[in-house]
Amino acid sequence: MNAEPLKVGLAGLGTVGAGVAQLLARNAALIAARAGRPIEVRAVSARNRGRDRGVDLSACAWEDDPVALARRADLDVVVEAIGGANGPARAACEAAIAGGRHLATANKALLAHHGLALASAAEAAGVALRFEAAVAGGIPIVKALGEGLAGNAVSRVYGVLNGTCNYILTEMERSGRDYAPVLAEAQAKGYAEADPSFDVGGIDAAHKLALLATLAFGCDPDFDGVSVEGIERVALADISHAGAMGYRVKLLGVARRVGEAVERAVRPCLVRAGSAIGQLDGVTNAVVVEGDAVGAAVFEGPGAGAGPTASAIVADLIDIARGARGPAFGVPAASLAQAPRAVEPTAPFYLRFRLQDRPGALGEVARDLGAEGVSIRAMRQDDERDAGATVVILTHACARAALDRALAAISASPVSLAAPVALAIEDV
Amino acid sequence: MNAEPLKVGLAGLGTVGAGVAQLLARNAALIAARAGRPIEVRAVSARNRGRDRGVDLSACAWEDDPVALARRADLDVVVEAIGGANGPARAACEAAIAGGRHLATANKALLAHHGLALASAAEAAGVALRFEAAVAGGIPIVKALGEGLAGNAVSRVYGVLNGTCNYILTEMERSGRDYAPVLAEAQAKGYAEADPSFDVGGIDAAHKLALLATLAFGCDPDFDGVSVEGIERVALADISHAGAMGYRVKLLGVARRVGEAVERAVRPCLVRAGSAIGQLDGVTNAVVVEGDAVGAAVFEGPGAGAGPTASAIVADLIDIARGARGPAFGVPAASLAQAPRAVEPTAPFYLRFRLQDRPGALGEVARDLGAEGVSIRAMRQDDERDAGATVVILTHACARAALDRALAAISASPVSLAAPVALAIEDV
Repeated sequence: MNAEPLKVGLAGLGTVGAGVAQLLARNAALIAARAGRPIEVRAVSARNRGRDRGVDLSACAWEDDPVALARRADLDVVVEAIGGANGPARAACEAAIAGGRHLATANKALLAHHGLALASAAEAAGVALRFEAAVAGGIPIVKALGEGLAGNAVSRVYGVLNGTCNYILTEMERSGRDYAPVLAEAQAKGYAEADPSFDVGGIDAAHKLALLATLAFGCDPDFDGVSVEGIERVALADISHAGAMGYRVKLLGVARRVGEAVERAVRPCLVRAGSAIGQLDGVTNAVVVEGDAVGAAVFEGPGAGAGPTASAIVADLIDIARGARGPAFGVPAASLAQAPRAVEPTAPFYLRFRLQDRPGALGEVARDLGAEGVSIRAMRQDDERDAGATVVILTHACARAALDRALAAISASPVSLAAPVALAIEDV
Repeated sequence: MNAEPLKVGLAGLGTVGAGVAQLLARNAALIAARAGRPIEVRAVSARNRGRDRGVDLSACAWEDDPVALARRADLDVVVEAIGGANGPARAACEAAIAGGRHLATANKALLAHHGLALASAAEAAGVALRFEAAVAGGIPIVKALGEGLAGNAVSRVYGVLNGTCNYILTEMERSGRDYAPVLAEAQAKGYAEADPSFDVGGIDAAHKLALLATLAFGCDPDFDGVSVEGIERVALADISHAGAMGYRVKLLGVARRVGEAVERAVRPCLVRAGSAIGQLDGVTNAVVVEGDAVGAAVFEGPGAGAGPTASAIVADLIDIARGARGPAFGVPAASLAQAPRAVEPTAPFYLRFRLQDRPGALGEVARDLGAEGVSIRAMRQDDERDAGATVVILTHACARAALDRALAAISASPVSLAAPVALAIEDV
């Protein structure tokens, strides 16, 4: 064994940073055996020196400023566990690379916004930039896409990328409660942040999807190219109707090749209840990769938390200790082209209408849909008679633009009592 | 890009070898971009030169003898796609390594029997030995265990590792037919070999489990240390009773750490129907890894076939082209110790009895179980009265040896009309 340890600096000692320090200490012997050399934390930075982090860091050098940490000449690699797309996290990462130090980060926002620039800088400096922990927590999906399935032309990669959203949707279904009370409970239990907008608004999932798309398709991370819709407007009624028709509602991130373009979207979708994604409950994440050689491969596991995130970061450190120096996104940064954004391809849709309960109302809806070439695959009408009728329709595949024109026509008619709901049905 | 191609020799041009050649040709540009250099087949060997393999191999050198192929000085890497634990496959692999050529193989039997010797030889020669395709086909589980989850102390790795068996069990359940006719149909459809004993006898799954255990626990592959039981004696009745009690019957490979020892077993087990493994239908494979940091990670995908196997082998070639040279099993071969074989740990069991239909029969069974400390968690008795009674019992966790003593006592009693059935319930 090469006795020279890999010398690590930890920038940030919150849940993630402390988890990494704990895991490196707890499994030091087996990590050294697998890495071919010891991996040791030599320096740390955090705002609060006094807090107990469950691991002895007394032998480490301490820097108050993460950028000063990243510049320390006695380190081989910096673990950035600060978070945020800019500010000290970005500065520390840039300083580490500029100083010729390898970088491992869990920071999806940073990479979704600045991944191309950071990957280019890392290549120019001859250092590794690794980010297994940035996508789907403990699931080694970055490695699977960049290495394990690298022989495949990928046609689609999709998944449940945000545990908070999946917990809320699962809990709405299980308890028969609507979005607001379930979110409040998730916040009380610590499953959702006090400001939940990053999660429930789909931003967190979109960061991860941008990275998955880059690995799968070799396109620029281009966060602004991801179409984002959160779960705030998913109603219990839609979860119930979907369930009765064999579907579940999931916040899905989907990236797919459409000719030369790449579609990237995060949105609530209906998926078949019996599919791997449809069976996913609670905070678990899952990613499905469809490739021309492998067919479909499914990866499931914990998407967040100290242990899973540390598992991913330590795997990156072991790779770096073993000598892995490949480009961050699996291909040279210079080849990451801004893929044309795909026009949303056709999809079947779930539609829910509140209509006047009078003869001809349903016929008018069907006529407006038909006028735009949207054809009906299945329909249900509720028997509640007090305040109009609820009509649920599943369509055959149609273009979103045509559907939107039909829905606008229906909304403008007096038979419509509320704005129609439309959710795409993703074929999973 | 390093313009020097990685020069590949294909030993064997059956389904696997031809699939590799096709994939390298079809995705040549993206594979070169990801590998940093082109990957080109330069020489091949197979018994029949004339057959159409769906890819143009006319520019390749042709060797009749795979060992001669493996000795060609103009190759960087040999892909062994011949199969078999000994014979020409083993000779070609040994020749490739001895000649300083890297090796990628899908040969689980070879590695389960000779993995330690081959890994030692590869290390001594400074070449890579890679075998992603040998376990669970297209699922990148070798990489996940050896790299992606390498920071974890693994406590258990288990899975459905043989698609033929899972197809047969799924089809018995779906169609309500017994083992023999379903096997015959699977053979007619090409899902099972004419001689199915390697699959249905659990040998194929045991080869794969031996490799998973080595990656997870750093023990000698030690195929003889795997306890093996196939699906030949699984009755439709057991699948039905299990289903009624919320379980499904799966052929499960399980490797687990028990103190300093490692238990390795392939056997039909009951698993919760709602678990990831319990939901697996048809020929799909799945592997679950339980680690101290990650918790549980689940990997699902096609376990066999030309495309998935080629996907795995080409991933190995890309890693080799990128410069990966680490030890075959993730740690130096010299450190792979023969782990003490674990005494089978306690487990809950499913038991099925055919008893005389007379007062006291069930009491005698319960008394014999109780005498050995085997306690009953649930019980069902069928109401068929024509030829004795069927009694199904789920036990709390007990030692296999104690259970076997109780079952021997019951078998020896006149109340027992047939040998009792006992299947472990694996907590998944």
